[in-house]
Amino acid sequence: MRGEPDGVRAGPASQQGMRRANLALVLGVIARGPRSRAEVAAETGLTRAAVSSLAEQLISAGLVVEEGPAAPSGKVGRPGTALGLNPLGPGGLGAEIGVRHLGVCVVDLRGEVRAVRRQESANHGRPPAAVMTDLAHLIRSAVAESGLRPAGLTLAVPGLVGGGVLQRAANLGWQDVPLAAALRPALRLAGDGLGELPVEADNEANLGGLAERWLGESPEDFLYVSAEAGVGAAVVVGGRLLRGARGYAGELGHVPVHPEGPRCACGAHGCLEQYAGETAVLRAAGLAGVRGDWVTLLAERAGAGDEPARAALAGAGSALGIAAAGAVNLLDPAEVVLGGGYARLAPWLLPAMRRELTFRVTVRPWAEERLTVSRLGRRGPLLGAAVGVVRAIVADPGPLTGG
Amino acid sequence: MRGEPDGVRAGPASQQGMRRANLALVLGVIARGPRSRAEVAAETGLTRAAVSSLAEQLISAGLVVEEGPAAPSGKVGRPGTALGLNPLGPGGLGAEIGVRHLGVCVVDLRGEVRAVRRQESANHGRPPAAVMTDLAHLIRSAVAESGLRPAGLTLAVPGLVGGGVLQRAANLGWQDVPLAAALRPALRLAGDGLGELPVEADNEANLGGLAERWLGESPEDFLYVSAEAGVGAAVVVGGRLLRGARGYAGELGHVPVHPEGPRCACGAHGCLEQYAGETAVLRAAGLAGVRGDWVTLLAERAGAGDEPARAALAGAGSALGIAAAGAVNLLDPAEVVLGGGYARLAPWLLPAMRRELTFRVTVRPWAEERLTVSRLGRRGPLLGAAVGVVRAIVADPGPLTGG
Repeated sequence: MRGEPDGVRAGPASQQGMRRANLALVLGVIARGPRSRAEVAAETGLTRAAVSSLAEQLISAGLVVEEGPAAPSGKVGRPGTALGLNPLGPGGLGAEIGVRHLGVCVVDLRGEVRAVRRQESANHGRPPAAVMTDLAHLIRSAVAESGLRPAGLTLAVPGLVGGGVLQRAANLGWQDVPLAAALRPALRLAGDGLGELPVEADNEANLGGLAERWLGESPEDFLYVSAEAGVGAAVVVGGRLLRGARGYAGELGHVPVHPEGPRCACGAHGCLEQYAGETAVLRAAGLAGVRGDWVTLLAERAGAGDEPARAALAGAGSALGIAAAGAVNLLDPAEVVLGGGYARLAPWLLPAMRRELTFRVTVRPWAEERLTVSRLGRRGPLLGAAVGVVRAIVADPGPLTGG
Repeated sequence: MRGEPDGVRAGPASQQGMRRANLALVLGVIARGPRSRAEVAAETGLTRAAVSSLAEQLISAGLVVEEGPAAPSGKVGRPGTALGLNPLGPGGLGAEIGVRHLGVCVVDLRGEVRAVRRQESANHGRPPAAVMTDLAHLIRSAVAESGLRPAGLTLAVPGLVGGGVLQRAANLGWQDVPLAAALRPALRLAGDGLGELPVEADNEANLGGLAERWLGESPEDFLYVSAEAGVGAAVVVGGRLLRGARGYAGELGHVPVHPEGPRCACGAHGCLEQYAGETAVLRAAGLAGVRGDWVTLLAERAGAGDEPARAALAGAGSALGIAAAGAVNLLDPAEVVLGGGYARLAPWLLPAMRRELTFRVTVRPWAEERLTVSRLGRRGPLLGAAVGVVRAIVADPGPLTGG
């Protein structure tokens, strides 16, 4: 906001900061699609000479490649060489610890999936170290297939994460697990450098919501609602995830739906999870205690016309609609997006959910098309984890360029 | 983010923009408390010469005054003259159209109240033009007392505002009222220039929430819940009001509390307003149909030990607690602030509200002290309206300095 005309004192520190910001500026433009140096200069307002120097740094760092002649621009003169993100540059690694599965995904710098793994794994009550050993194997195998060198790893977990610690994951039976420290010993065994990767972690619904923002067609403001064992949500406002004052936002599963309803594991009564979570829906479908992937099971039964399964999902949809109506009245999002396991179950959830939203959001009439289904489905959190790593590189390539 | 080292092209337009930004930078520092020119230079990073030139412009515009010698700084040399906001400079004018009252407030540039008016007025169902005539009288009288020349007027109204139009105010019985256009003819009658003021408008709960942020001790993230005839709320995230995708956020009054409960004016069943709004609370207290200021009436009765009044308020507190618990689980605010009429009724609302919050917010235990009572009380929205005008001047004094 300040500059020469009023006599700001600029020092070397701010020049370095500016170079770093300009590296990000140039890489950000290139990330939107291949461009000649001249086009990058025009879009950024930087001089052609500055762009060339910055591009050189990005190419040396393996982040950008020359892709051959740029498309003719209609202007006089030879077309320049197009610069693009390097598909063989540093990748993003995402890993997911579910209650019944492990997942790994590697994306390249452009966000394209280069390897993906999913493995059934009954993780509830297992010691974190054992789970991490399995996860490290899966990671190593996916990274090998991808042919990329990941720049970082993000873990998606079904619980509350703060400062890299999984504070509570009721459905895993885990508490206060320092995730990076738990995973590193297993990753280090092979001595291939994976053990030294920066590791971050986040709640799976948060990552699912971010994936929706980054890869889906979602608007700037939306509520993302997903299910695996529990019910999760992400509130996105102005394109950014709302994390809350202590980082615990998005606990839609514990919004009261029928305040005098059944007792929840959290201690309260009538939480959404008591109507739309795994245990509740299985019980309502006459499948109490059944093990395995409840989402697939119910989708198959409901698809085959099984009435109890359909009624159970309609009940869950109604509860989801009541909770979503409260959130819509409070937040006025442009959309409510059903993701995760709910995306698969959407055909049977949507009618009741739409009914409640239409009935309860009347300050301005609720338009049906504002309730949408994620096309990323159950892969959302894993994709969000992996893509977040490469987005962070593009947002600030400085550390990888020595700048 | 861009600058000389990489060769940005700067034009005259950006120099003008920079001067405007620097005027704001200097005025912002002065607004935090009187300072010498040298102190302003040190805090802003601008040169002493630049600060002197900018200060001259701010003084000419009547925004800043010399306040006499600055406090000794402990440094060698004569202390400079302190610069402060001009208490006789342009003021902020706030006006409120309630269901049963009109209010006006004038604050000076420092946000101090210089005149305030409140007048009972049964506005429900009255034609906007008649209400505006009364309001214009009240405005003129308050402005005359203040001795200030207001720079703008903000109207607080109990309904949804979009593009300056009061789209719906059920408790006033108004719909689609272009507020500025409705008020101007009455303001123009005296020919004193008030009719030419820029007029803005906002929902009263939004302005109450902003007042809490600007004048209260609220944190960066909080939920403000208030009542006059209806139930209003403001969601503040990172210090900013969350307005929603279409501008309708904060409709806590229509969050479902008991989904099968009594029918609401909005068409749904069991909305919070059916338990904690004026009509519902009066009915529960055995005072159905009583006219006048329900908040004062109930506070007096409950204060005198009237059991039906106390029970009615406990019921309202319980419903408020259920709705607030849902909002807390979804948004994780640092505080829930009871404002407006609820601030006055807090002694009888708080116990039940605390109980529900403690019972229903368990992801991390709910700390009682996070439920607070606004010390601005029912004046919040009016103060927010008036202070918003002067805050806008301080944030961008350019237009008033010819810059």
